[in-house]
Amino acid sequence: MELVYTGKTKDVYALEDGNCLLKFKDDVTGENGVFDPGANTVGLQIEGAGKAGLRLTKYFFEKINALGIPTHYIDADLEAGTMKVKKATPFGQGLEVICRYRAVGSFLRRYGKYAQDGQPLDAFVEVTLKDDDRNDPPITEDALDMLGILSQDEYKVLKELTQKIAGIIKEELTQRGMELYDIKFEFGRIGDDKQIALIDEISGGNMRAYKDGRRVEPLELEELMR
Amino acid sequence: MELVYTGKTKDVYALEDGNCLLKFKDDVTGENGVFDPGANTVGLQIEGAGKAGLRLTKYFFEKINALGIPTHYIDADLEAGTMKVKKATPFGQGLEVICRYRAVGSFLRRYGKYAQDGQPLDAFVEVTLKDDDRNDPPITEDALDMLGILSQDEYKVLKELTQKIAGIIKEELTQRGMELYDIKFEFGRIGDDKQIALIDEISGGNMRAYKDGRRVEPLELEELMR
Repeated sequence: MELVYTGKTKDVYALEDGNCLLKFKDDVTGENGVFDPGANTVGLQIEGAGKAGLRLTKYFFEKINALGIPTHYIDADLEAGTMKVKKATPFGQGLEVICRYRAVGSFLRRYGKYAQDGQPLDAFVEVTLKDDDRNDPPITEDALDMLGILSQDEYKVLKELTQKIAGIIKEELTQRGMELYDIKFEFGRIGDDKQIALIDEISGGNMRAYKDGRRVEPLELEELMR
Repeated sequence: MELVYTGKTKDVYALEDGNCLLKFKDDVTGENGVFDPGANTVGLQIEGAGKAGLRLTKYFFEKINALGIPTHYIDADLEAGTMKVKKATPFGQGLEVICRYRAVGSFLRRYGKYAQDGQPLDAFVEVTLKDDDRNDPPITEDALDMLGILSQDEYKVLKELTQKIAGIIKEELTQRGMELYDIKFEFGRIGDDKQIALIDEISGGNMRAYKDGRRVEPLELEELMR
């Protein structure tokens, strides 16, 4: 089993059957010890964070797979903290796709002249480049197409999948008394037909959720979803 | 004649006939004495810059008007340094619409992971919010629509007009041995039917042009276009 990539919160191994194994770590993105799903640095380590994130990821991916939405998920081993996934090719050197139901975070930092803090947004989808050096810049459909990262047809699929998946997760959170403010996903191309599929993870660290007017931290969210 | 707005490079007066008068100033945007069309500060003052900018603006607007493309331009008085225009309503609190033929400036700062310095771009259009406090953030078609700044139909018109007008100016520069790298415009709504029209100015300060591998500064560009 060969280590092929060391990420901020996961390591990736190549399996002999052509699939990949993701090993979840206890690192959490944030700055100065405060969790921030939009941050590019590991801000803190929390014991058990990896397995709790995997448990929620497993739960959501199995639900999404069952609904016929393409993902890279095959199965997960909660004891080992690993997830077996299909090999995926990222778009360009990686994109993040964000779905927003409330104006917070980087949306508000950019568009605060036109949006109030916490203002409802209608499943607004935006794409950012994974580029730590340039602070994950937002990018338009036209620019993605022109730079050869994603065609306009693929963008439509990506946006539709994003809203569909975010809607499923929002509903799950609602059932547990939480409100989903925003969530970020990664997508890639899978298999010979290069189908667009959800990849990476869906843990508390990927989303902002609120309960009774208070931000729910990732581990608490994962606990509330058990 | 009432002063209604003091801009970085122009003052705006309301005329009694319902139109507006723009008075061009000798201020040029830039930082530390170096011209930069993307800058939000006045970097230097150059005697005659206002009138030279007005002369080029008059030239381009008359050409564009003659081609039946809607603009706010009525006429100009080169001696007085003023331009008479129709009253226009901006989109939101103001947008800048950029058309790019080469990857330079803020495009390269954002997308340098995918683009080479000076790489040709196919009349790429992007929109930024006029918001000095937030460094003129780029904004997508979807966000413009959702924030009530511009509908998706209006965006299509805006993009088409931008590419058409930029093409006219690029051709004019080509005829004088220059290459247009990028240009920024402002648009607004004019008249009772709220027609989308080109507003503001088109001077050397709105564009980046090169000649014989060297950047052409605004005043030099205005001189070459006489």
